[in-house]
Amino acid sequence: MNSMVTSNPLPRAAATLDWPRGFRAAVGAAAIKKQGRDDLALLTMPSGATAAAIFTRNLFAAAPIEVSRRHLKDSRGHASALLLNSGCANAATGPLGVANAVESIDAVARALGCASESVLVNSTGVIGVQLPMDRILPELPRLCARIERASDGDSLEPFARAIMTTDTKPKMSSRTISCSDGRTVRVSGVAKGAGMIRPDMATMISVLATDAEVDARTLDRVLRHAADASYHRISVDGDTSTNDSVFAFASCVAGACDETLLAAAFREVACDLAKMIVCDGEGFERSLAVRVSGAAIKADALKVAETVASSLLVRTAITGGDPNWGRIIAAAGRAGVTFRANDLELRVGGNLIFRDGQPVEADKNAVRAAFNGSHVEIAISLGATDGSVGEANSDTFLSCGLTTEYVRLNADYTT
Amino acid sequence: MNSMVTSNPLPRAAATLDWPRGFRAAVGAAAIKKQGRDDLALLTMPSGATAAAIFTRNLFAAAPIEVSRRHLKDSRGHASALLLNSGCANAATGPLGVANAVESIDAVARALGCASESVLVNSTGVIGVQLPMDRILPELPRLCARIERASDGDSLEPFARAIMTTDTKPKMSSRTISCSDGRTVRVSGVAKGAGMIRPDMATMISVLATDAEVDARTLDRVLRHAADASYHRISVDGDTSTNDSVFAFASCVAGACDETLLAAAFREVACDLAKMIVCDGEGFERSLAVRVSGAAIKADALKVAETVASSLLVRTAITGGDPNWGRIIAAAGRAGVTFRANDLELRVGGNLIFRDGQPVEADKNAVRAAFNGSHVEIAISLGATDGSVGEANSDTFLSCGLTTEYVRLNADYTT
Repeated sequence: MNSMVTSNPLPRAAATLDWPRGFRAAVGAAAIKKQGRDDLALLTMPSGATAAAIFTRNLFAAAPIEVSRRHLKDSRGHASALLLNSGCANAATGPLGVANAVESIDAVARALGCASESVLVNSTGVIGVQLPMDRILPELPRLCARIERASDGDSLEPFARAIMTTDTKPKMSSRTISCSDGRTVRVSGVAKGAGMIRPDMATMISVLATDAEVDARTLDRVLRHAADASYHRISVDGDTSTNDSVFAFASCVAGACDETLLAAAFREVACDLAKMIVCDGEGFERSLAVRVSGAAIKADALKVAETVASSLLVRTAITGGDPNWGRIIAAAGRAGVTFRANDLELRVGGNLIFRDGQPVEADKNAVRAAFNGSHVEIAISLGATDGSVGEANSDTFLSCGLTTEYVRLNADYTT
Repeated sequence: MNSMVTSNPLPRAAATLDWPRGFRAAVGAAAIKKQGRDDLALLTMPSGATAAAIFTRNLFAAAPIEVSRRHLKDSRGHASALLLNSGCANAATGPLGVANAVESIDAVARALGCASESVLVNSTGVIGVQLPMDRILPELPRLCARIERASDGDSLEPFARAIMTTDTKPKMSSRTISCSDGRTVRVSGVAKGAGMIRPDMATMISVLATDAEVDARTLDRVLRHAADASYHRISVDGDTSTNDSVFAFASCVAGACDETLLAAAFREVACDLAKMIVCDGEGFERSLAVRVSGAAIKADALKVAETVASSLLVRTAITGGDPNWGRIIAAAGRAGVTFRANDLELRVGGNLIFRDGQPVEADKNAVRAAFNGSHVEIAISLGATDGSVGEANSDTFLSCGLTTEYVRLNADYTT
């Protein structure tokens, strides 16, 4: 971690996880999927705020993604508000789905007195069902009225809760940057997502916000850098969704900030949220990090790390706490990356297990303990470097054990 | 099915599933993993028999694969015997593993009186453990003596059983070809494999045998054609193993046979065996076929079919009998193939479910029934063709629902 970035490690008291200056948030309940829970979330920012986003590359991108992509382009990276809902993805909903997304945006723009193209929108939930506009539209003016009563520095939690679907916990993180002139700048973020998680985004929605003054182009760069190190390095089940997105907003009210520091803070917040997503993966029992070093190029390291971390046989072995390292090297060997099999070294929890094409006599109790912790660390060296392990030849991928509970949840999730 | 190929559909009475003329088989018990079950299998063929094989492309190919690959090359596609064992994969076993494979081969060659390089070998079971040579070596002369007492036309079943690991059933198939001059020629096959199954072979071992007269080059071509239509179109868990292989042998004792007919028979036997592997997949409850048509090129059709068939969310929905078609189109949309989302048509069990970017009013009971059968047929048209659905734009991929039992089995499979 960069020493200039003061960490706000996830506190017990959620009250300290709040929105940066200039942001106001409100939530509402429109009974989109079920009665009595917040399923609408609105975030507003002052005029002049900048915006950037990464959207799913799925060909069946949802209606709100289509509309938000257009608005972000038309506004040249500026935004006044973001409207999210859970309970319905508004995906695979045809022209009516697009019309509903536009109608929601127009209602919010009217109530807030801003231009429609400065409002972004996204939805998460079941695919192929239309939004219940009869319940959503009456709620939107009330939601916007609540924004007027909100203040800077409100807790992230209500917003983080309102966008949850199968998540069991709200996901929030925050960092403070101390600028050289004594000012502080804040980066906060929320996320949702528990299934359908893999690189290129997933049923994941994340919102990152800063009060630093950042132009739209820089914000986009900082966001992509952060997503690369976080959301693109996790997998729960290899599936991506129609609604995946990460939004970044800068209210610009707290003055400028060194880009390197800002990027580090964005990256840390995004990595926190990505880890929380993995550890809240459906049926989660145990997390798994696969670190690959000594590859010929970084892309090879990523490919091996992702293949091992995504292997069903590795993931079930992790669930079983079973030191079945043969599955780990078999997965590495089919990753489609060329390396000398005899050069591979495998360590689990720091214990050397495999070298020179065969298992190493290891302390069986230590190995078993390494496979049975709440977090399993797999380190694979492909031997292409001379010991000076550089970032250029390394990458890490996060996943979790595959459990019977994951299967049960997803076999029972009724459309 | 080619009308010239008379099908021997899987009979109830396994006695009719036998080896073609010229082949002799024997099994033995060496207590490799556990006492009292057959775990050695030997197949011999007459001098002049030809051989071909497809081996795993995993970088950690097992010791016996390494040795067999060399022998097949040295013998220029000829073979006298194949020795298989279950209970131990002899993979990731270093130089000692190779020495053990060679020592087993030498013992068989000595007992049979043939050249060592005409003997092929493979193993299946746990990775990273050495073969118990003290128990295997004494058993090999007995195994070879048993071959002397075997006869042409013996049942495939003892051999098919001896190579089983987590399989619950022996896998056998046979076809008879009627040649134009009244002669008949036979193609028979056995296979094992239940987990670690996906394209490029898996923990799968298959042996295909014919009594037709076929030169080594033709046999290799016929084998690759058959594997392409079968073993390379199935997936149980996306993992491949260190020991995957398909062997083909021709005893050449029944005279020549038209290559097209022979290829059709090999393909049918291989497809039978591939389907049996999927339907004996660990924790199997329900099979799944994904047929994609109307792609720009065949490779695109395969990519979409494999992505949908391998999606954990689709596979858990299949297990739940849940008509969650949104997961199917979401998987198609992330396959990395470019098509117009609005052109996609989705049918399940013949019921049109999705068209023009949105769901179609379908008979809910019929759809639910289609998702709840013992076999689920998913048909996706990408719309690139004009209705004349050609093989050039289509492909099919087989898989099965992902079950809690699969996870339980693989979490508990102790090294």
